[in-house]
Amino acid sequence: MLRGHANWVGYICGLKDMPLKFTLIQKDSHSKARAGTMTTAHGDIQTPIFMPVGTQATVKGVHQRELRDDIRPDVILGNTYHLYLRPGTGIMEGAGGLHKFMGWEGNILTDSGGYQVYSLSENRKIKEEGVKFKSHIDGSLHIFTPEKVMEIQRTIGADIIMAFDECTPYPCDYQYAKRSMHMTHRWLDRCLEHLEKVPYKYGHPQSFFPIVQGSTYKDLRRESAQYIASVGAEGNAIGGLSVGEPAEEMYEMAELVCDILPEDRPRYLMGVGTPINILENIALGVDMFDCVMPTRNARNGMLFTAHGTINIKNKKWENDFSPLDEMGITFVDTEYSKAYLRHLFVANEYLGKQIATIHNLGFYLWLVRSARERILAGDFMPWKNTMVKQMDNRR
Amino acid sequence: MLRGHANWVGYICGLKDMPLKFTLIQKDSHSKARAGTMTTAHGDIQTPIFMPVGTQATVKGVHQRELRDDIRPDVILGNTYHLYLRPGTGIMEGAGGLHKFMGWEGNILTDSGGYQVYSLSENRKIKEEGVKFKSHIDGSLHIFTPEKVMEIQRTIGADIIMAFDECTPYPCDYQYAKRSMHMTHRWLDRCLEHLEKVPYKYGHPQSFFPIVQGSTYKDLRRESAQYIASVGAEGNAIGGLSVGEPAEEMYEMAELVCDILPEDRPRYLMGVGTPINILENIALGVDMFDCVMPTRNARNGMLFTAHGTINIKNKKWENDFSPLDEMGITFVDTEYSKAYLRHLFVANEYLGKQIATIHNLGFYLWLVRSARERILAGDFMPWKNTMVKQMDNRR
Repeated sequence: MLRGHANWVGYICGLKDMPLKFTLIQKDSHSKARAGTMTTAHGDIQTPIFMPVGTQATVKGVHQRELRDDIRPDVILGNTYHLYLRPGTGIMEGAGGLHKFMGWEGNILTDSGGYQVYSLSENRKIKEEGVKFKSHIDGSLHIFTPEKVMEIQRTIGADIIMAFDECTPYPCDYQYAKRSMHMTHRWLDRCLEHLEKVPYKYGHPQSFFPIVQGSTYKDLRRESAQYIASVGAEGNAIGGLSVGEPAEEMYEMAELVCDILPEDRPRYLMGVGTPINILENIALGVDMFDCVMPTRNARNGMLFTAHGTINIKNKKWENDFSPLDEMGITFVDTEYSKAYLRHLFVANEYLGKQIATIHNLGFYLWLVRSARERILAGDFMPWKNTMVKQMDNRR
Repeated sequence: MLRGHANWVGYICGLKDMPLKFTLIQKDSHSKARAGTMTTAHGDIQTPIFMPVGTQATVKGVHQRELRDDIRPDVILGNTYHLYLRPGTGIMEGAGGLHKFMGWEGNILTDSGGYQVYSLSENRKIKEEGVKFKSHIDGSLHIFTPEKVMEIQRTIGADIIMAFDECTPYPCDYQYAKRSMHMTHRWLDRCLEHLEKVPYKYGHPQSFFPIVQGSTYKDLRRESAQYIASVGAEGNAIGGLSVGEPAEEMYEMAELVCDILPEDRPRYLMGVGTPINILENIALGVDMFDCVMPTRNARNGMLFTAHGTINIKNKKWENDFSPLDEMGITFVDTEYSKAYLRHLFVANEYLGKQIATIHNLGFYLWLVRSARERILAGDFMPWKNTMVKQMDNRR
């Protein structure tokens, strides 16, 4: 199950133990882009990386074997909120953690559930103690506190776990954003304190990432980034972006925060984004991304390609028997035609969603792997600029 | 695209050309079971065989690669009614036929659309000329005649195509069954006559199977089987069974008909059935089967195994982290646990349906492959009797 975890067994996962090793391999000389390698108990993560979202212990419509052999992400994401509600921590513990439960031997990162509590559940009440909410499934009452979320994430057993924060909406009143940020910082202290008391459960250590908040206010982002940096965590995340603000504001905040966060630790921009967003943020110093866009849009028939997006449901593809994508990144690109995929969507056949999902994830992973290669080769910026132009197109 | 089709190119597909070669390899000495090999332009079909149903140019939720490498049926089934309505014959012809359209290089058999017209469409009117019906998709009006259905099947381009018949319901009034059977025989003559005029389209020949009807009346079944046998087709089908009659009646009719149909041609029992039905009918001399049961029941969480059926949604599997099926026929059986599959069904995740479908089809194909091996080894009957007892169980 575990690959090369022997070195890590015996670590107690406090922050001082640093189970996650991050090696900065190359810095781009024409941008702030970086290529690195993170090493955990479940193998190396080559950065920049995109993490497919596996909400309920599954990347929707994708077999684990396809993830492993075709899409090949070094790490995937699980949602604490969803896994806590279904199957629940009892089953997760019985299985020996999420890796074993779902049969995924690569790395996993879990979010803290905060974002879903704010976006999915009814009647949520945010207080200093934590958040009370009703399950979106059956309306049952629950409470998430920083302490409880750390325990849940210990039980899920991901390689990287996230602080419990408040993700503010956009736009957000300055005073609200400031108060919320300070509460997120206090919650971070409670997370750290509690993690020291609750050991990890399945023989492999867990790395903990705190999250920078501060909405779109530079002074708040600066203050938050400084606070987060001061914690000395193994990696750091930027939250509260890609929530509706213009892309330029996202880039401005990401750059400001990346410049403050320590250079020798990975930086994770949560919930981002389009292929263009990803390349632009790589240029600003971000190393890790996740987003439902490639999978969710796939299920609606939208394909991302190196030459722009395709709505495969359009009639124009009805008689186009050419391969799905001439780039042939994954098997679906060459084994199926555009006309066939369109037919599957028109006929409401789930195989259509499966094919589009594999295509989109394959493309996203190709994109970050290519970015890494270009950073290593020293020509990232001209390539990035060409790709951004080329992808900004509806085919 | 085509495997070993060179020998067949140049054949004109009339009945006298016999593009389908059937070699009877072994007859069981303790039953009427047979092992054979059918050879077509798209490769060998080892019989007995089960054909997964690929209604709308896709076996629901299964990639073509999984069919080819994991489930490994020598032949799959497409539905003329569905393919005619969506994507339609124009697109099918543009693609160069169904094999190319869906990217399946193995054999395909298409039904004649009759069964779907009777079961799915509204306001169907059956007359001597043919059947008028409304599309179940948009209510548009269509007519299927024997001639038209032959043309549609030429355009779809399957390796084996079926006569246009009337499939009577169960129970069926004797006089209706008799009149219907005679009309089915007249329709058969029209199919044969029209096929001579319409050549096949894609460089490979098509074999044509007529269909025995006669409801559950022995004299009608006998008369129909004699009529069908007299045609001298390359293979023969038994229709109008597995429509609600008791299994014993199905077996009685199948045996009666098999005893009349020529021994040197494959026999196809349409729409059958459970794993037990399949083994019992193999013992009576049937060579080919198709049924939506393994795929449809999979999507409802029902698994077929060598030790009986499983309803994976039951709470009893919630904490069962053992492999899905210890037999390990396909990768899903060992890569996923019962508890994980149950979670996917409870959480309404489509991957659950995908896993169950591959499991069930893998099991059905294992079953017919095993039957063949036992026939060849000479111990089919004791194995069949053990399996029938063992599978008649809810786990």
